[in-house]
Amino acid sequence: MTNVVITGGAGFLGARLARDLLAAGSLDVAGGGDRPLSQVTLLDRVPVPPDLAADPRRDALARADVVFHLAAAVSGEAEADFDLGIRANLHATEALLAACRAVGTSPVVVFSSSIAVFGGSPEHPLPAVVEDRTLPNPQTSYGIQKFIGEQLLADYTRKGFLRGRSIRLMTVSVRPGRPNAAASGFMSGIIREPLAGQRAACPVDPDTEVALASPARAIEALRCAATSPDDAWGGRTALTMPGLTVKVGDMVAALEQVAGPAVTSLIDWVPDPVVAGMVSGWAARFRLDRAARLGLAPDADFTSIIRKHLADTRT
Amino acid sequence: MTNVVITGGAGFLGARLARDLLAAGSLDVAGGGDRPLSQVTLLDRVPVPPDLAADPRRDALARADVVFHLAAAVSGEAEADFDLGIRANLHATEALLAACRAVGTSPVVVFSSSIAVFGGSPEHPLPAVVEDRTLPNPQTSYGIQKFIGEQLLADYTRKGFLRGRSIRLMTVSVRPGRPNAAASGFMSGIIREPLAGQRAACPVDPDTEVALASPARAIEALRCAATSPDDAWGGRTALTMPGLTVKVGDMVAALEQVAGPAVTSLIDWVPDPVVAGMVSGWAARFRLDRAARLGLAPDADFTSIIRKHLADTRT
Repeated sequence: MTNVVITGGAGFLGARLARDLLAAGSLDVAGGGDRPLSQVTLLDRVPVPPDLAADPRRDALARADVVFHLAAAVSGEAEADFDLGIRANLHATEALLAACRAVGTSPVVVFSSSIAVFGGSPEHPLPAVVEDRTLPNPQTSYGIQKFIGEQLLADYTRKGFLRGRSIRLMTVSVRPGRPNAAASGFMSGIIREPLAGQRAACPVDPDTEVALASPARAIEALRCAATSPDDAWGGRTALTMPGLTVKVGDMVAALEQVAGPAVTSLIDWVPDPVVAGMVSGWAARFRLDRAARLGLAPDADFTSIIRKHLADTRT
Repeated sequence: MTNVVITGGAGFLGARLARDLLAAGSLDVAGGGDRPLSQVTLLDRVPVPPDLAADPRRDALARADVVFHLAAAVSGEAEADFDLGIRANLHATEALLAACRAVGTSPVVVFSSSIAVFGGSPEHPLPAVVEDRTLPNPQTSYGIQKFIGEQLLADYTRKGFLRGRSIRLMTVSVRPGRPNAAASGFMSGIIREPLAGQRAACPVDPDTEVALASPARAIEALRCAATSPDDAWGGRTALTMPGLTVKVGDMVAALEQVAGPAVTSLIDWVPDPVVAGMVSGWAARFRLDRAARLGLAPDADFTSIIRKHLADTRT
């Protein structure tokens, strides 16, 4: 029997992952063989008490075969409130890893890192194409905190305290639900809001190139991280998941193709230099051999992403 | 007037740095102009209280123009005692950065990182030559903790909380004084102990290639980090200081040349697979353009390093 814990389980990805796992009914943890799911525990906004013995998460963790650590303050939040980012993205991750170590069962821990670890600075510009061995150079607190989480997970894994898998998620589009404080939020908002008959602001130029992945691809990457045998996973360094490279203008053209000009006319092009500056520093082109070897591929095109979003939200 | 704080000030490098600074009598902080030293505060093994307002370091930090953060648990200690490493290398660094932020004066903070951030794993072997943009892949807790410190310092700098400079120090040889728990300790021990008429064990093969720097070069690198103007320093990523690449057998040959065969006969070649394994994973060859631009160079040869050690210890 397989027990799963998902932190950030009330969030969009966590809830979708839980539903997908429950629908499948079984999980093959790190290539150890497919076993029925006995329990999926969702944790969210659980305060981290200094004394882990009193931690309500401890019972769930003690039985966990796989822990998906998705809980995080998003990029915009961590940038606006440095202390919140440190608390939610660094200290909470440390506390979770310490708790996973304390239970003594060396569970598989999937850490949701982010392509926000990549960035360019004047003296170290981002290469035109990001590869598996590209040096992360995070330019946001969120990216720094995720990169630190990767390092901690790698060392906990090396020490045998747990079996860590860091997976760098792409920006997810189209993300359902309400806008959040992520600087990448517009990549969903300019599709989701117009399709729902609402206006949406696009803060960047149509020529801006971005990389993104559908919710289904993000869940696939998380599951791949949990289920791959150690050898196939390929070591303790973080794996960058593939993304579809697309211009924002072409995203809107795809929306117009799928839903018509009345829908795209709801987009207001309102440049926001702060958001545009952040986005222009993000990696948009990738060559990811390690992900390809694991069978992970980007979405085929943005039109199919929109159609999947429509199918998901109609159900 | 310039105020300096040195954590780990009772250690070998900290004490030597303090003596050198006091002998010079002035310091040019980040290219702001040479000013007389008014105070050098040495901090060592100061407990980190949860309430920084009650911190005895706060007064010194409040007046500090430069903080050299040298305090650390060394590689062997951090590997043997994971919790000690996390406490001494991660949490103490976080607490120091938070304290530097809290004083509100944005001091220059020089963080002593280490070439231990570089490492090779089966899936990501270390490149033959490490360059400025080589991806760190630490294979020890010490290396992980130092690399995390670099990331925190970079983000504190980006946010304007302080002006951070991370400098990756080479293994220092010949380090005076007593042996410590660093896995690299033999690189000093096989020179220092025989010169003092004592036997020393060499745990690695004579063909093992290592990179090292004399104490004077390490102090020079720390001073360069403190004094370089922002533009010359070249960004928030860590700077790797240059090292002399030398085979352990050639170190011993140099010792024989300087001190004779009676001295080198005191070396016992006692292979230690654990130490040899760690050392073989370390970077030994470098091409460091950024350090060269700053005028930093490796020691000329190992013979001159031994002669400097003899001159230092005779005074």
